[in-house]
Amino acid sequence: MSTRFGTVGLIGKYADAQVASTLGEVSDYLQKRGIRVVVDEAISELLPDHSLEAVSRAELAQRSELAIVVGGDGTLLNAARALAEHDVPLLGINLGRLGFLTDISPQAMVTTLDEILEGDYVEEQRFLLCAQVQREGEVVSEADALNDVVVHKWNVARMIELRTYVDGLLVNDERADGIIVSTPTGSTAYAMSAGGPIVHPTLNALVLAPICPHTLSNRPIVVGGDSHVEIVVCKHVYEAQMTCDGQIGMGLLGGDCVRIHKKDRTLRLIHPAAHDYFALLRAKLHWGKQP
Amino acid sequence: MSTRFGTVGLIGKYADAQVASTLGEVSDYLQKRGIRVVVDEAISELLPDHSLEAVSRAELAQRSELAIVVGGDGTLLNAARALAEHDVPLLGINLGRLGFLTDISPQAMVTTLDEILEGDYVEEQRFLLCAQVQREGEVVSEADALNDVVVHKWNVARMIELRTYVDGLLVNDERADGIIVSTPTGSTAYAMSAGGPIVHPTLNALVLAPICPHTLSNRPIVVGGDSHVEIVVCKHVYEAQMTCDGQIGMGLLGGDCVRIHKKDRTLRLIHPAAHDYFALLRAKLHWGKQP
Amino acid sequence: MSTRFGTVGLIGKYADAQVASTLGEVSDYLQKRGIRVVVDEAISELLPDHSLEAVSRAELAQRSELAIVVGGDGTLLNAARALAEHDVPLLGINLGRLGFLTDISPQAMVTTLDEILEGDYVEEQRFLLCAQVQREGEVVSEADALNDVVVHKWNVARMIELRTYVDGLLVNDERADGIIVSTPTGSTAYAMSAGGPIVHPTLNALVLAPICPHTLSNRPIVVGGDSHVEIVVCKHVYEAQMTCDGQIGMGLLGGDCVRIHKKDRTLRLIHPAAHDYFALLRAKLHWGKQP
Amino acid sequence: MSTRFGTVGLIGKYADAQVASTLGEVSDYLQKRGIRVVVDEAISELLPDHSLEAVSRAELAQRSELAIVVGGDGTLLNAARALAEHDVPLLGINLGRLGFLTDISPQAMVTTLDEILEGDYVEEQRFLLCAQVQREGEVVSEADALNDVVVHKWNVARMIELRTYVDGLLVNDERADGIIVSTPTGSTAYAMSAGGPIVHPTLNALVLAPICPHTLSNRPIVVGGDSHVEIVVCKHVYEAQMTCDGQIGMGLLGGDCVRIHKKDRTLRLIHPAAHDYFALLRAKLHWGKQP
Repeated sequence: MSTRFGTVGLIGKYADAQVASTLGEVSDYLQKRGIRVVVDEAISELLPDHSLEAVSRAELAQRSELAIVVGGDGTLLNAARALAEHDVPLLGINLGRLGFLTDISPQAMVTTLDEILEGDYVEEQRFLLCAQVQREGEVVSEADALNDVVVHKWNVARMIELRTYVDGLLVNDERADGIIVSTPTGSTAYAMSAGGPIVHPTLNALVLAPICPHTLSNRPIVVGGDSHVEIVVCKHVYEAQMTCDGQIGMGLLGGDCVRIHKKDRTLRLIHPAAHDYFALLRAKLHWGKQP
Repeated sequence: MSTRFGTVGLIGKYADAQVASTLGEVSDYLQKRGIRVVVDEAISELLPDHSLEAVSRAELAQRSELAIVVGGDGTLLNAARALAEHDVPLLGINLGRLGFLTDISPQAMVTTLDEILEGDYVEEQRFLLCAQVQREGEVVSEADALNDVVVHKWNVARMIELRTYVDGLLVNDERADGIIVSTPTGSTAYAMSAGGPIVHPTLNALVLAPICPHTLSNRPIVVGGDSHVEIVVCKHVYEAQMTCDGQIGMGLLGGDCVRIHKKDRTLRLIHPAAHDYFALLRAKLHWGKQP
Repeated sequence: MSTRFGTVGLIGKYADAQVASTLGEVSDYLQKRGIRVVVDEAISELLPDHSLEAVSRAELAQRSELAIVVGGDGTLLNAARALAEHDVPLLGINLGRLGFLTDISPQAMVTTLDEILEGDYVEEQRFLLCAQVQREGEVVSEADALNDVVVHKWNVARMIELRTYVDGLLVNDERADGIIVSTPTGSTAYAMSAGGPIVHPTLNALVLAPICPHTLSNRPIVVGGDSHVEIVVCKHVYEAQMTCDGQIGMGLLGGDCVRIHKKDRTLRLIHPAAHDYFALLRAKLHWGKQP
Repeated sequence: MSTRFGTVGLIGKYADAQVASTLGEVSDYLQKRGIRVVVDEAISELLPDHSLEAVSRAELAQRSELAIVVGGDGTLLNAARALAEHDVPLLGINLGRLGFLTDISPQAMVTTLDEILEGDYVEEQRFLLCAQVQREGEVVSEADALNDVVVHKWNVARMIELRTYVDGLLVNDERADGIIVSTPTGSTAYAMSAGGPIVHPTLNALVLAPICPHTLSNRPIVVGGDSHVEIVVCKHVYEAQMTCDGQIGMGLLGGDCVRIHKKDRTLRLIHPAAHDYFALLRAKLHWGKQP
């Protein structure tokens, strides 16, 4: 039986024994269907009995026509940033707790994989952000994000002062715990806890959401997805931090400017054919549930 | 001296003596510059000494290359809906209190008009919504909105139950005081009071913001501007209402469906060349002000 | 077998056939235990086969040592206001959907009633509010509330302007859809939807929560429970309304003053001995639930 | 001329040259009125020409009948904690920017001091909190707070998990950036930025406000002021921090329990006779201001 996916790469939550059995099932399933399987070397030790080829993430991305990620949304965020430069689509299998990105349950896995291998699936494009830290005119660090770039206080219990520009225009100066620049994908993550709106994943937009702003009228702002956002840390702030997807942290000094813009290449995210974003929202946010 | 605006139509806040002097100044200024002036017949009585031609709004729209609105944002909303089918741009002069749409002060009026008549201005496109009430398969009423279409409780002190669809997909069932469907233009009006985000006016997007929802995770949602939104009033709700721009009210019955979509023709809104949306936000929302 | 409750009054959700079987079970249970049962005449038709004495609510209150309310929180609110002048404690049995006030499920009913009749229960005091409408110096209407008194717009889609005083001191002038004056009991009802805090039921405090305020810094305010609150509807507002517990509505005119203060007599609310307010919050608000 | 204040202690913002001239004026004014002045040794270098006796804060507290604090609310918070064990009332003079605690402007200073020294003033009692960190059964650190005790993430960009108890009862487990336990005094500070309500300073209550909670229904809770609050940091959290008044930071480890209760001794805060809490709110929060 033919399939468009000749080689599939497996990625799992690092050092989590719980993912081993699901990974094993997926790998057995794929091999029975005559599909070559390569596995992220970071987790190959979780699959000692499956005689799979362990490769680096870069090689996995180059050789696979599909990457299957087993874990939570955090695992998929991590994989997405690593594979962003390549053209391989991602599919997320959760570990019992439904995620916004890992929306296939272990129970529905086999049926869903059957459908997907037959070509019965939905492919979504999700854009990523690139954040550069500019210090005295030079880029000193850089990272990508699928959910959000956050500029926030660190190691101090006081608000920091931030100045925000969009496309070169001053938005405002604000005192806050920080500011979140979120993609539509990230709008249901940290930005929502900070009071930001839900943004449909197909929208080309960014959310700028202040975290605990001192001025109560500093509301979340939605701007175009192609905007160039700059966040300048005020000179007298000693220490701040930039965090991407809640996973990568980089130190900031007073005067640093964090420049954020959309990456050229988007993430290809695979969903079951029956995927319904609003149904996912209803399930994750307990809409309409009665105790 | 040439100008692109051969005829200018004047519109003012209805029955407000305060606008008379500003309208008079504008009319004198334009006539001195050799521009023909026609005035909305609804307010011509405010300008008895200026011997202006009073015309209907439809005729005003057809004959003018520019419509100047004197009043508050409410006056401009009203004029925008009336002139939406025509291709005449609008310019708003406020009466002492800065508006989001009427952003020229009486003090800056002459200088700004000088610039605008010379062609030194910014023209923005703002989209409008059309809302249709469908009852047992038939459209029973219809209205336009530049800010927002609101489906809300009326005459009862209880929440109503609403079911929302976007492009035919169920979003959710919610119990609330109502729901606001807002354009980017309206995002700084009623939707903001209900907890919605600020949406940049250039974004092609709609905000769906619940009013006092019973379920606390029912957050505002931002969807694409070309979405077809449907809001169904639950059968057992006796009375509800649809309101456009806070100005036009229409009764709803249980079972009615309000269908909302973007209008084909956009509003042409004229701003001074120095117009800066974020500066307007900072001024209107007291960002950075200290007492 | 002795019990402190010689006579029990039964109250149920009006004209709801669903409550009939639960009411019947309660009535049979009580009579088997030798307790006299009287039933609210408004619902006696729901119990045709139980040969119970149907009485007015006033008589029910006078003759009963305990009133059992079967329905939702709305039914209990209604009963609480009716019985507020009397000294009879209330016990709420819900109809399948857990309420903040009706916290005994039909399933747990017999076991819980056993315990309660043996004296194994918790009695809470919940205070009520009295709201008077003053027009040109005279009180023109008056109502009680266990949850909240709301002054809100009516029949207009525009904000109204309200001036609030606490103990004679001006709090503020605000433009909003309305304002909620809530007891701790009501803090988890409408006030919470408007952004108000949860207030522990033992606290002697009132919440003043604006509904969709125009000024974003108009936050909910918590003041002492013995405060005298006055809300004045601005003169140019044509129509507004006062609503108590979402059940009693009274028209307001521009210039009217709504005066709100705590009633002398509190409601005695009976809970099972294992009653835990925070557990109720966790259940009702889905805290800690995963989809 | 007699006054109840024979000796006055002066406290100022540390190392801030701006306060020097105001401190000098106050000191000259007091000495002209025959009042003994002692000055906090931490800032005596700011007043080299006034030949004032420099003393430790402890001695200042013992010898003074009034302490005058010149600076912002932060300076007064600092002084309040230092003087909390003593019985000396505090009076705050701001440096041009109105504070909630330092509500006398330099302009109104002389007139106001005249009145206060004549006994024409209002004295308020504000309670403080004591926070103890308990680790494996032992108290390892302790600090006081006038505004708030905050348990928050530190040095990690991820939410932390916290379990909260009130009077021994579990409130909830929540994932958040942290939780604020605020006095009424602190309700207009950090807790308000996190979405907490304004609590009138005379109320005996605490606000528990989550910071960016993952679960959207985790709303601020107001409990009695005499409550014993315990916040347990989940075992798997590596690092967290406790911060008092945004000024004192203490490291927390997974498993630590922060125990918070009201201190016995309250702060005596002196206000001008015309002090009006709601007027202060209106000024600080721009209520009713138009741009």
